[in-house]
Amino acid sequence: MNGAQALIRTLVDCEVDVCFMNPGTSEMHFVAALDRVPEMRGVLATFEGVATGAADGYARMAGKPASVLLHLGPGLGNGLANLHNARKGNVPVVNIVGDHATYHKRYDAQLESDIETVARNVSPWLRWSKTPGDVGADAADAVVAAMGPPGQVATLILPADVSWLDGGEVAAPKPAAGRQPVGTDHVEAIAGVLRSGEPAALLIGGSVTREAGLVAASRVANATGAKLLCETFPARLERGAGLPNVDRLAYLAEFAMMQLDGVKHLIVVDTKPPVSFFAYPGKPSVLVPEGCEVHTLAGLTDDAVGALAALAEAVGAPADGATRQDASRAERPTGDLTADKVAQALGALLPDGAIISDEANTSGIYLPAATAGCPPHDTLNLTGGAIGQGMPVATGAAVACPDRRVVSLEADGSALYTFQSLWTQAREGLDVTTVIFNNASYAVLNMELSRVGAEAGGPKAKEMLDLADPTTDFVKLASGFGIPAWRATTGEEFCGSFERALAEPGPSLVEAIIPGIV
Amino acid sequence: MNGAQALIRTLVDCEVDVCFMNPGTSEMHFVAALDRVPEMRGVLATFEGVATGAADGYARMAGKPASVLLHLGPGLGNGLANLHNARKGNVPVVNIVGDHATYHKRYDAQLESDIETVARNVSPWLRWSKTPGDVGADAADAVVAAMGPPGQVATLILPADVSWLDGGEVAAPKPAAGRQPVGTDHVEAIAGVLRSGEPAALLIGGSVTREAGLVAASRVANATGAKLLCETFPARLERGAGLPNVDRLAYLAEFAMMQLDGVKHLIVVDTKPPVSFFAYPGKPSVLVPEGCEVHTLAGLTDDAVGALAALAEAVGAPADGATRQDASRAERPTGDLTADKVAQALGALLPDGAIISDEANTSGIYLPAATAGCPPHDTLNLTGGAIGQGMPVATGAAVACPDRRVVSLEADGSALYTFQSLWTQAREGLDVTTVIFNNASYAVLNMELSRVGAEAGGPKAKEMLDLADPTTDFVKLASGFGIPAWRATTGEEFCGSFERALAEPGPSLVEAIIPGIV
Repeated sequence: MNGAQALIRTLVDCEVDVCFMNPGTSEMHFVAALDRVPEMRGVLATFEGVATGAADGYARMAGKPASVLLHLGPGLGNGLANLHNARKGNVPVVNIVGDHATYHKRYDAQLESDIETVARNVSPWLRWSKTPGDVGADAADAVVAAMGPPGQVATLILPADVSWLDGGEVAAPKPAAGRQPVGTDHVEAIAGVLRSGEPAALLIGGSVTREAGLVAASRVANATGAKLLCETFPARLERGAGLPNVDRLAYLAEFAMMQLDGVKHLIVVDTKPPVSFFAYPGKPSVLVPEGCEVHTLAGLTDDAVGALAALAEAVGAPADGATRQDASRAERPTGDLTADKVAQALGALLPDGAIISDEANTSGIYLPAATAGCPPHDTLNLTGGAIGQGMPVATGAAVACPDRRVVSLEADGSALYTFQSLWTQAREGLDVTTVIFNNASYAVLNMELSRVGAEAGGPKAKEMLDLADPTTDFVKLASGFGIPAWRATTGEEFCGSFERALAEPGPSLVEAIIPGIV
Repeated sequence: MNGAQALIRTLVDCEVDVCFMNPGTSEMHFVAALDRVPEMRGVLATFEGVATGAADGYARMAGKPASVLLHLGPGLGNGLANLHNARKGNVPVVNIVGDHATYHKRYDAQLESDIETVARNVSPWLRWSKTPGDVGADAADAVVAAMGPPGQVATLILPADVSWLDGGEVAAPKPAAGRQPVGTDHVEAIAGVLRSGEPAALLIGGSVTREAGLVAASRVANATGAKLLCETFPARLERGAGLPNVDRLAYLAEFAMMQLDGVKHLIVVDTKPPVSFFAYPGKPSVLVPEGCEVHTLAGLTDDAVGALAALAEAVGAPADGATRQDASRAERPTGDLTADKVAQALGALLPDGAIISDEANTSGIYLPAATAGCPPHDTLNLTGGAIGQGMPVATGAAVACPDRRVVSLEADGSALYTFQSLWTQAREGLDVTTVIFNNASYAVLNMELSRVGAEAGGPKAKEMLDLADPTTDFVKLASGFGIPAWRATTGEEFCGSFERALAEPGPSLVEAIIPGIV
């Protein structure tokens, strides 16, 4: 058994049985070994950013990591932005980077570069496999490291000769570290803060944004009068009819400060105290109001859901004390299309059990309200702020959940980053319906240009934020991969197209032509 | 004057007057400053890999660097592969990476990451601008560092507040370092080796692959009987009728070893001794034959062209002793299209003064022979081996040389990496004609799978190397950016389409449907 076979067998034994890949020559023995370990599903991406983002989306929905196979330093570079997003979302990824054979590195061949320095940007856990006898144990360690808590990107650098040489040894899975229980005294202390009567807010994130955590948080909020907020970009947020609905902290610092205005105690649960995404001249970086005390109920490695449930008991919240969202559906929109009307249409038509990958950016601000009463669904969000995440994440989520419809909401600017996701969606026949919000603009940057206090943008500046000339025709791009696609300019057209798209097996796309918001 | 204005003004004063960019919020003051310094041309890319590759292509043709503007660590990641290619080609690039405001970094905001560790992969010169008063001098230093010799990627990290604060100071250009003259004694010693009568070869690269260097090298070869070879992937190779024609060292180690078989003295000029691109079990990494002595006439920082001219004199080569390629044109091909026939058609129709960006990969093996007698042209090659270079490099070359037609030769697999280049070509109205060699396969990997000695690929392995299902329709992709495009399945169709494409002002595309070579 060679190293590659031992590696893949170990991964499968550790329940890591999907590998999103864009291999090169140094990974050919890994590729060849796929036929020896049929339980490993190889999913080809035609660009590395698709592979890494798909692994992120897969793990968010599967609750376990996928593996990724990348080609040397440049391949890792191409995949880095979406590994950054996974890192910021504490999402587990087993990131395998192929390297030259150990003895070949010294010759500084054309594709030689310092892989480790790049990997350090995203990967707290990093190991270079040294021999075929090591690689199985290295893989088992990588899986445990990736699982955390918190989840992380674990990078295993795999030299070509470690793959091809005999002497591979399969390693047994290792036990994952559990989350640490939060002590009763600490829960009681937080309960005391909430009982003080001073204005308080709960800020939840991470593991708390699914039903059990949301119910416990809602019980606490209702019993104490604390405001309930969720981090801005939760990796995975369960919502819809029957689930507690939670407002997300606004992306714009000004709005976030309004949400937190007057709060004297901020109870943080499995997330970080809020900071502004960017610095703006004369505006604060930290969004915690002056005089507000921050209390961490549970950190990123703690049993945050258990702690919230205990807190609910400690504050005397009744078992059925959570507020659950009523079912409701928006009306189907009519007339000229806007971002608001697309949100309304999604509210009217979102299928039961949908997984929304949300990278609609500025065009998405109407979505939470419009879809709150839809049947239960998940939203996967832009955890690390690096655009080009949405379509890959949608791809991976569809691999993880073949029985659910993925709705991939994309701003035009972001869509142009990793549009190659559609190729993989077509190859794998994934049930992903992409909605492009095409306003022919980097609308967020037009907004940011004034927010950062830059002088009024002249024509050259404006041109750098404008995506017209050429305006991209996403229907043609989708057709280039054989994917059925429609363009909509009215509410009626959008609804009809979206219904047709949902009825298609495999991928489909609807391009919504909307006005720029600026 | 704020820091951003001082930076841009300094760059322009240093003759760096193009900036390929994909900015974000932290770069908005840089963008706003473009209207204050009208001499700086901003060129928007919709993906960072396009921006970095375009800067590479620009510098190869302009002989001076462009600047690049990227957004934080993830933006640098997206641009890294093409910076790798620039690094390996010793091409100057002034790489500006925007960062959070200095005081904001400590809060670990969503897009915070360790930029420096990523930049180290490609950038020997790296500096963090600290104040608006520094940034002008930093930029002037970056330009000098980028120019080398040898050329390199020089990375300037630009915090948002260094951009926006007043106190910017424009710095004067600094003198570039020249190439070092090679001593007469050293030239004479090499001449002595060549006079020995033992089999010798000249391996040229870098600065030597343009007319003056090629002529000197050809004179030496003709006067001494030494074989003349060029590095496999020269950044820029001048060729065609009237110029000395030089064989490139083969990509495949087996063929390269045949080219060097029997050579006792390898004279290396502005390149490195040859090594295999990848390691293969049981095959050597170093391609220098056993018993062959390597002599470096001129290293990467030396005046290699001057040294070769002196060597030509020392070996008594007549001034007109270079062999110059006769003009000749291939016949127009007919019948079902193959990679060979596309090369033939290019030989028949390549316009005078064309710039070929060659990322045709396996499909390109017929090109050198088919185009040798074409009118003088340049070829820009895959210097670092990281695919996704060709279309961005073509884009930048067209910005540098608006009066020349760029012919961008692309394999389908490579084209899917940075296809967004077409958006920038359309935006800027660049005269780039892209030819896609569509064999619906990573043909090079099908070949490498057997070369690395992997067991016969099973169906799962083969699926990872196959780009059919879906087969990409590049005509539709191009149409998505409003670019005129044609598909060709015969020699006649290809010639007709290519002629129409060349007649189009601005970008155009021809998709050549060819059989896989495996």
